[in-house]
Amino acid sequence: MRDLGEFDLIRAITARFGRSPDVLVGPGDDAAMLAAPDGRVVVTTDLLVEGRHFRRDWSGGADVGHKAAAQNLADVAAMGARPTGLFVGLATPGSTELDWVLSLADGLAAECARAGTTVAGGGSPRPAPDGFRPIRADDDSLTARGWGHLLTAHRRPRPPYHLGPALAALGARAMCDVSDGLVQDVGHLAAASGVRIDLTTDAFPVDDALRDAADHLGVDPLDWVLTGGEDHALVACLPPLPPSVALPPGCVRIGSVQSDGTGVTVDGRTPTGVGGWTHFGRSTSNHPDRPHSPE
Amino acid sequence: MRDLGEFDLIRAITARFGRSPDVLVGPGDDAAMLAAPDGRVVVTTDLLVEGRHFRRDWSGGADVGHKAAAQNLADVAAMGARPTGLFVGLATPGSTELDWVLSLADGLAAECARAGTTVAGGGSPRPAPDGFRPIRADDDSLTARGWGHLLTAHRRPRPPYHLGPALAALGARAMCDVSDGLVQDVGHLAAASGVRIDLTTDAFPVDDALRDAADHLGVDPLDWVLTGGEDHALVACLPPLPPSVALPPGCVRIGSVQSDGTGVTVDGRTPTGVGGWTHFGRSTSNHPDRPHSPE
Repeated sequence: MRDLGEFDLIRAITARFGRSPDVLVGPGDDAAMLAAPDGRVVVTTDLLVEGRHFRRDWSGGADVGHKAAAQNLADVAAMGARPTGLFVGLATPGSTELDWVLSLADGLAAECARAGTTVAGGGSPRPAPDGFRPIRADDDSLTARGWGHLLTAHRRPRPPYHLGPALAALGARAMCDVSDGLVQDVGHLAAASGVRIDLTTDAFPVDDALRDAADHLGVDPLDWVLTGGEDHALVACLPPLPPSVALPPGCVRIGSVQSDGTGVTVDGRTPTGVGGWTHFGRSTSNHPDRPHSPE
Repeated sequence: MRDLGEFDLIRAITARFGRSPDVLVGPGDDAAMLAAPDGRVVVTTDLLVEGRHFRRDWSGGADVGHKAAAQNLADVAAMGARPTGLFVGLATPGSTELDWVLSLADGLAAECARAGTTVAGGGSPRPAPDGFRPIRADDDSLTARGWGHLLTAHRRPRPPYHLGPALAALGARAMCDVSDGLVQDVGHLAAASGVRIDLTTDAFPVDDALRDAADHLGVDPLDWVLTGGEDHALVACLPPLPPSVALPPGCVRIGSVQSDGTGVTVDGRTPTGVGGWTHFGRSTSNHPDRPHSPE
């Protein structure tokens, strides 16, 4: 599992799931969309935990897939409802064999077929890379430096929920939340739409404390803006708006969509490196003065 | 967490969640039902894993609740949709402090409120009891005894999905799937409806291999039928049917609902003990000849 790219893994898994007329938007977007013909939808969720609900020396991956699907789909049936989609969250140790995961997917798909539905979406956190060590700091020292709200933003990202429907109402043609980093997520929009997206960094408001913390760590703050994840801001592509229509408060124009070309450019250049972006001015990967902690 | 009863825990948690007109049926049933006014519903799922997405020495329970809710609700907003309910699956070590879980629930509720919605359902497997040791056996020896299909039924329960809507169409007034054991699950129906449910054991078809395996282990097979979980059969309470209407194939009448009284009786007696049922003829808890394995 650890050796396979996230998107290759998603492709290998979703290829095993059938199609269903109930699934209006399936795997690959931020979320799925299901038909709810009578205007009501029945939802349930449950968890299977290894060692508690199954043992891998007793049940194969396909067995676990069947059982995980069955225990949820049975709850839908018990409401007198017909299941229209199964969503799967999967957390595995990095050592999990790909074959086991694909067997699990086969079991999920087969049980869904028994119930007349299919797997309509899911999520699976990537296992931590080897040697992953978060930088540590304590609240008080960060607050003393005026960086307390940066910590809060990490702990409690504040997505602008109301802007989703607002941007859709303005005719947004593509939209996602920034979970993996702006360049990478915008790259998915560009790839899905077959366009090029040009970003302009001078459009980004950079918080003073963010700039200060980045300086302290020897990092360009734009690296964080462009590649940092988990902010859950929304990024959308809008059609040209008439002069009388303003962007909703809180929205900033950060670039443009071009029909000639592919990928993402940042200030006219093609980003490379981890997270789809490496700062061009200096390398940050082995900055000699970069401390491992602000302490 | 290990010391708190499952239903007390669910009550303590769900008391923290607000109400929403979008939630037609909320926590406490097999599944929730949400309003989908335009006939479409957007669904997403994701996972936060301790050590990967959060650390408890860095983020409090409320922080983790906010973040878990935010990362999913932001995906809904990114579809241009308005969230109508959050569903939570929670797996914790038995040592988890109740306060931490309640803070998590508070964080989930507060972030949902930011997004104009509420927690509409969820699931949390009970931690394994101390000293829990499953009986072990291998496929070949079970198959040789003619018990192979019992193992298959454990690995891959086969819920009769089509019977859910069929029983609803017949006017089922209460229905659930049997996940915790028949007596216990029927007890929930009786309690929720303020009625007594009388079960009659001679109505149960008992598979020959099940009887044989139970004999071998010195167990009354009815103990398994009445208290075994994870079969995910459906149990429903129907109104009296006119003589011209037959039960759908696969359904068996196993008892009756009485408006005078509460709880469940089995053959006229009130069950007690683990799983809401102890066989009256002999104790099975310390059967002197009971082997720990069929080997």
